[in-house]
Amino acid sequence: MVESRLTGSVRVVGVGLLGTSIALGLRARGVDVILSDASPTNVSIAIDYGAGRAATDGDDPLLVVVCVPPDVTASVIVRELSAYPRAVVTDVASVKQPILDAVTAAGGDVTRYVGSHPLAGRERGGPMAGRADLFLGRPWVVAGHPLISYQTASAVDDLILDLGATLVEMTAVEHDASVALVSHAPQVISTLMARRLTGAPDAAVDLAGGGLRDVTRIAASDPELWVQILGANAGPVVEVLRAFRDDLDRVIGALDEPTAPGARRTIAEELAGGNAGVARIPGKHGLDRRYSQLVVMVDDSPGELARLLAEIGEEGVNMEDLRLEHSPGAPIGLAEIAVVPEAAESLTAALSARGWRIAG
Amino acid sequence: MVESRLTGSVRVVGVGLLGTSIALGLRARGVDVILSDASPTNVSIAIDYGAGRAATDGDDPLLVVVCVPPDVTASVIVRELSAYPRAVVTDVASVKQPILDAVTAAGGDVTRYVGSHPLAGRERGGPMAGRADLFLGRPWVVAGHPLISYQTASAVDDLILDLGATLVEMTAVEHDASVALVSHAPQVISTLMARRLTGAPDAAVDLAGGGLRDVTRIAASDPELWVQILGANAGPVVEVLRAFRDDLDRVIGALDEPTAPGARRTIAEELAGGNAGVARIPGKHGLDRRYSQLVVMVDDSPGELARLLAEIGEEGVNMEDLRLEHSPGAPIGLAEIAVVPEAAESLTAALSARGWRIAG
Repeated sequence: MVESRLTGSVRVVGVGLLGTSIALGLRARGVDVILSDASPTNVSIAIDYGAGRAATDGDDPLLVVVCVPPDVTASVIVRELSAYPRAVVTDVASVKQPILDAVTAAGGDVTRYVGSHPLAGRERGGPMAGRADLFLGRPWVVAGHPLISYQTASAVDDLILDLGATLVEMTAVEHDASVALVSHAPQVISTLMARRLTGAPDAAVDLAGGGLRDVTRIAASDPELWVQILGANAGPVVEVLRAFRDDLDRVIGALDEPTAPGARRTIAEELAGGNAGVARIPGKHGLDRRYSQLVVMVDDSPGELARLLAEIGEEGVNMEDLRLEHSPGAPIGLAEIAVVPEAAESLTAALSARGWRIAG
Repeated sequence: MVESRLTGSVRVVGVGLLGTSIALGLRARGVDVILSDASPTNVSIAIDYGAGRAATDGDDPLLVVVCVPPDVTASVIVRELSAYPRAVVTDVASVKQPILDAVTAAGGDVTRYVGSHPLAGRERGGPMAGRADLFLGRPWVVAGHPLISYQTASAVDDLILDLGATLVEMTAVEHDASVALVSHAPQVISTLMARRLTGAPDAAVDLAGGGLRDVTRIAASDPELWVQILGANAGPVVEVLRAFRDDLDRVIGALDEPTAPGARRTIAEELAGGNAGVARIPGKHGLDRRYSQLVVMVDDSPGELARLLAEIGEEGVNMEDLRLEHSPGAPIGLAEIAVVPEAAESLTAALSARGWRIAG
């Protein structure tokens, strides 16, 4: 077992996916983990999963991690600061400045509180979805503020490093603006695009391809959670949405008179801006997303895709990413495979020689 | 060789990806294919690829398929109708009513013209990207109009069926409204979301996850082609975008005062509408997309994903869809696997028994 950086007990409040995953990750490093939840059933389940132990009267945690829904996070933080006057407290909610403001307003001792936010994918699922390695290699923002003590900051840093996450430091305001841009506004945009489909004829929706599916995938997210997130981060989200709407108005204006002078140029500039924006998104391993793409045709029968991937492995090539593309009723699919550019040519040749059909 | 339904020569004008793929598919059925392109080099390449032969003075095609960029499609159709007065003419552009209007206005013989549109994924790439089976199982819209003769309609139907595509009949107006909704408006929305990233700090963009990547993926599309498509289908696209903007204004209004009475309800309704819309998108085989999802953790080493898929095959389960999810710097990935609901429970148990880690 790798020794933990944390040198005391950690109390986890709220044993949903994030809380249970944090607890499991700390247990794997031998940390004493105390579990608490509004639901005694959830605590029992998490204990059964080996995530820690029940709270006792004598608990003296070094660190309390609040993992409850956004709209009750601040009040739970205040309660924990007061219940454990020697403990450092952090939380994992996806909005930071309003929580800091609320804790301050409620008279919480913010010298012992610093908010944090692990960017750890799925936001749903109870304790049974918890995984010790949920945070491995993921960014975890610490939203520092001027009043925190060195001790506070270092305990939270230790938590993040113990869980194998990548520590990212920014202010609460910077954090909220960042997630508004890369997470909250995209959620709204995806939702509103998907909403356009509700009244559409079946025949129209049947023409949908991979593009629409991608754009609307996160529109399937849990409304209850997102009402809380969007409400809590309303200001920064609105700022992104207003800028989006300004661009949208420009496109609508140009499309209202598509043959007017400058109209096509306006549209072309927006499209080029989209190209430039998407190129900035980092891919796997933090690298630029521009891997070489191979598109291989795969029969829609069990084992065919496995055979393809096995043969790619035999060629000694590591796939950086993979995506399947299907169309309604198609007996074949396309596997889009991303590999490092140096491997693309030889892999194409090798797969062709093995009889795979490769598209450009 | 399966016999073709088409009983004469087919002239393909424009040997980009679509034209070459149509030609290759018809050659595979033994059809005499005549190739034409503004670029003699492209014709030579396509001939070398076995896509057909060069045009001669004595050509008397049964059918001409116009596969040139949208902004020159109508004029090429008119030219071909006049050059081959016995031939039926169709095109494959992604917008239909403006082309029909332009052909009519130019005095083209529309009793011999009917537009069509194969929904065939990738829209880029020259003749070398052509594939005989590009259209297999994909929807291919025939945009009928009152003036077409039975002979015209049946020649285009034969073309579509010979290429293994699924024939979908709708009017040009219905087609243009449908693709505005499921393809053109999503392109604009994805582009404008991606454009928001251009001025953002690196630290913000580095927090991007799979959601943002999905929403913005098609923002990487070719601006030149899309200026033409959006310009040609401006009216129907604007209609979708205006409705989108109305919803967006409602969300912005609610987020401007997130604690006002009704604000959260407005946001919740939009989110629920997004849920309902995305549920309408058909998945593979035209079925509802609500397959059961399994999320399996896969080590980021060559062969691991292949081993997982092989073992799924050994369990006799067919994957309906698959997606990989990575985070920057993560040594592991998540494979999201879609299977029919009946198979989900037993597959989960079987994979767990084989030592795979499965998330909720």
